[in-house]
Amino acid sequence: MSIRDIARQARTAARRLAAIDNATKNAALDAIRQALQKDSDAIIAANRQDLAQADRDNLAPPLRKRLAFDAEKIADVCAGIDALIRLPDPVGRTVCAMELDTGLELYRVTCPIGVIGVVFESRPDALVQISTLCLKSGNAALLKGGREAAQTNRALADAISRAGEKAGLPAGWLGLLETRADVAEMLRLEDEIDLIVPRGSNAFVRHIMNNTNIPVLGHADGICHVYIDAAADPDMAVRICVDSKCQYVAVCNAAETVLVHQDIAQTVLPRLHEALQARDVELRGCEHTVRIIDVRPADENDWRTEYLDQILAIRVVDSLGAAIEHINTYGSGHTDAIVTGDRQAAAAFLDGVDSADVFWNCSTRFSDGYRYGLGAEVGISTNKIHARGPVGLEGLLIYKYKLIGDGHVVADYSGPTAKPFTHKPLDKECRL
Amino acid sequence: MSIRDIARQARTAARRLAAIDNATKNAALDAIRQALQKDSDAIIAANRQDLAQADRDNLAPPLRKRLAFDAEKIADVCAGIDALIRLPDPVGRTVCAMELDTGLELYRVTCPIGVIGVVFESRPDALVQISTLCLKSGNAALLKGGREAAQTNRALADAISRAGEKAGLPAGWLGLLETRADVAEMLRLEDEIDLIVPRGSNAFVRHIMNNTNIPVLGHADGICHVYIDAAADPDMAVRICVDSKCQYVAVCNAAETVLVHQDIAQTVLPRLHEALQARDVELRGCEHTVRIIDVRPADENDWRTEYLDQILAIRVVDSLGAAIEHINTYGSGHTDAIVTGDRQAAAAFLDGVDSADVFWNCSTRFSDGYRYGLGAEVGISTNKIHARGPVGLEGLLIYKYKLIGDGHVVADYSGPTAKPFTHKPLDKECRL
Repeated sequence: MSIRDIARQARTAARRLAAIDNATKNAALDAIRQALQKDSDAIIAANRQDLAQADRDNLAPPLRKRLAFDAEKIADVCAGIDALIRLPDPVGRTVCAMELDTGLELYRVTCPIGVIGVVFESRPDALVQISTLCLKSGNAALLKGGREAAQTNRALADAISRAGEKAGLPAGWLGLLETRADVAEMLRLEDEIDLIVPRGSNAFVRHIMNNTNIPVLGHADGICHVYIDAAADPDMAVRICVDSKCQYVAVCNAAETVLVHQDIAQTVLPRLHEALQARDVELRGCEHTVRIIDVRPADENDWRTEYLDQILAIRVVDSLGAAIEHINTYGSGHTDAIVTGDRQAAAAFLDGVDSADVFWNCSTRFSDGYRYGLGAEVGISTNKIHARGPVGLEGLLIYKYKLIGDGHVVADYSGPTAKPFTHKPLDKECRL
Repeated sequence: MSIRDIARQARTAARRLAAIDNATKNAALDAIRQALQKDSDAIIAANRQDLAQADRDNLAPPLRKRLAFDAEKIADVCAGIDALIRLPDPVGRTVCAMELDTGLELYRVTCPIGVIGVVFESRPDALVQISTLCLKSGNAALLKGGREAAQTNRALADAISRAGEKAGLPAGWLGLLETRADVAEMLRLEDEIDLIVPRGSNAFVRHIMNNTNIPVLGHADGICHVYIDAAADPDMAVRICVDSKCQYVAVCNAAETVLVHQDIAQTVLPRLHEALQARDVELRGCEHTVRIIDVRPADENDWRTEYLDQILAIRVVDSLGAAIEHINTYGSGHTDAIVTGDRQAAAAFLDGVDSADVFWNCSTRFSDGYRYGLGAEVGISTNKIHARGPVGLEGLLIYKYKLIGDGHVVADYSGPTAKPFTHKPLDKECRL
């Protein structure tokens, strides 16, 4: 089948999925969980082929580790499916209700977006998580995983789509794409696909964003900042900087630049230097910084760089306003934190920094769907519309307006004898 | 100033606007209202120039009527500004709150999107409405109105931006674009502009959608349907069809196609024919229809056409499913109605039709921000993300996550001695 045919089938499936009840979706999720357990030998065997190929290709150890999919990982994704089954139906929730006139009632009701295309990294568990999130939210999914996981993905997608269809989901609700050419084709299918969620390197995400007219939900860069205000507790500041930089350097919510108010620079920079040296972090400082601590000089490129490594840029600023200005100029709108004992400074920072996640006295590393309590995470978005920050199930939903009347026509509400609207908020669900 | 400079200034202004309190925004709105009243002679004189030019250009009478801007129109827009002042601040509203752990609290808080580019028709009141909606929601605005209203728009934008700045808004919060080349330039400024809202003809909106990487909120076509189910009350069906088609033919929520279940076609088609002939509506019917009533035959192109005129296409379908299929195939996802006495059929239609507005037993003409009680309307969206259907103030908002801790770091929640998260919903506002 061509990618267009797969996408068309997904579109047709999506329209049926939108009207499927929670019991059917949960039965399908349960069938998928059982299929993964039943097929686990075949899935693990497929993964061994991928791992053998990875060894022949000398895949970097961290990537190889993420590629591995064993009985324990299968148990993990099955536990995730169980958690999803326990969640209430996100579809069909009445968000607001209003009487327009007697017997004429308007409801805003959540519904699936439609067809979601997700391109993700070489982590086979991502395929299970994303396909089941799409199912619970009533969306059809087109998935393309990393090529290193090709055999595993095929085995998983096959088990999941078959089990779902046997449990009553429409044919083609889950489509697997396999090549870069498939992705390029998908990006052109704006009539069939409603949303693209790309996950992976920032070059890759940027490439997707620049090559499609389909809305894209995600983030390219994660250039996160910690700003140490004049009124910061120096110990807390150092602790938060160390965690934000070092707790996991290779991720989007790790800090890349620390900004330090000039009034506290003499106090805090030496301590920060010592703590980060102890963690093998290379520091790069602005002119002002290098006069206080002995670190390599930074240039403007450093402010724009997502190191994803044991490197941290440091800049001394002369005011809170300058810190906000720096972040809004060089940051990526992902996650930025202020350390301060001054409530007013914190408020100004949280309102003035134009980022998805703005933190006061805590580590940038907290910006994550699991830590936020959102349950499973679709991704982290730096978009300015639809969904921002860590995105859970509700990022895969939109709403429709349902208006229920009894023969009402607009002519009665127009002209010199127009009836007035009542516009009375209703406290009720839309039940048909 | 170049368009890029205007947009950069708007970006800077937007960041300041995001942190401005409701009292300042309301004072600015009040100053704008006073300025419009004070400058009304100059504004009306500018409008007279536009009207004189329109007469020289033989502008069509309905367009000329919409272009006219007199003392009464000024009073109307000033009343609109007063209504906006009375609304609570849409910015800074806590949408949800959760304790992640003791002393670590997460808030999702509404905030402005940033810089909104709006391209609108030759109705000078639209300039006032859109600029004040953007202001109340804390967004900077770049506006381009119809060229027929060039003099009026200049006078209005000048009065509004100056009054706003005098009342404390940042310079450049409102930018006026004047030519098509300006719009083309704006569509390329994806780093400075967060959302484009185009209003106008469908060819124009489609052009905008196809020529920018900036997210676009709006609709191109409005191909709306009324489906008369087998279980419809024929009188109600005819009344709703007449209103949906005729109450105002030139608008996006007017019906363009009526679908009729075959079991009721013999009963309802002659009555519909008679009622619509009395209203001078030309009917075009499918093969089945023309066997029952004497109307011109329709072809597949008719199903795809937004007539915006006294023309209606009619197709007989053999089932509810076929009606839903027709609408999802040929419709534009705008507004579609079912007429039926069968609650189950209504539920299947409302869930199965993939449109922003799905109606049961009422006219498609109800889909409108004013009728929905949303207050002022930004536009009507057929997008599948962010905002759908009639869009009010909240369509100009997104949210940010504010996380407030007391030195919390992620390392404490990781590894073998990880602290658990509490993830306890909080019933409180984010107050700093």
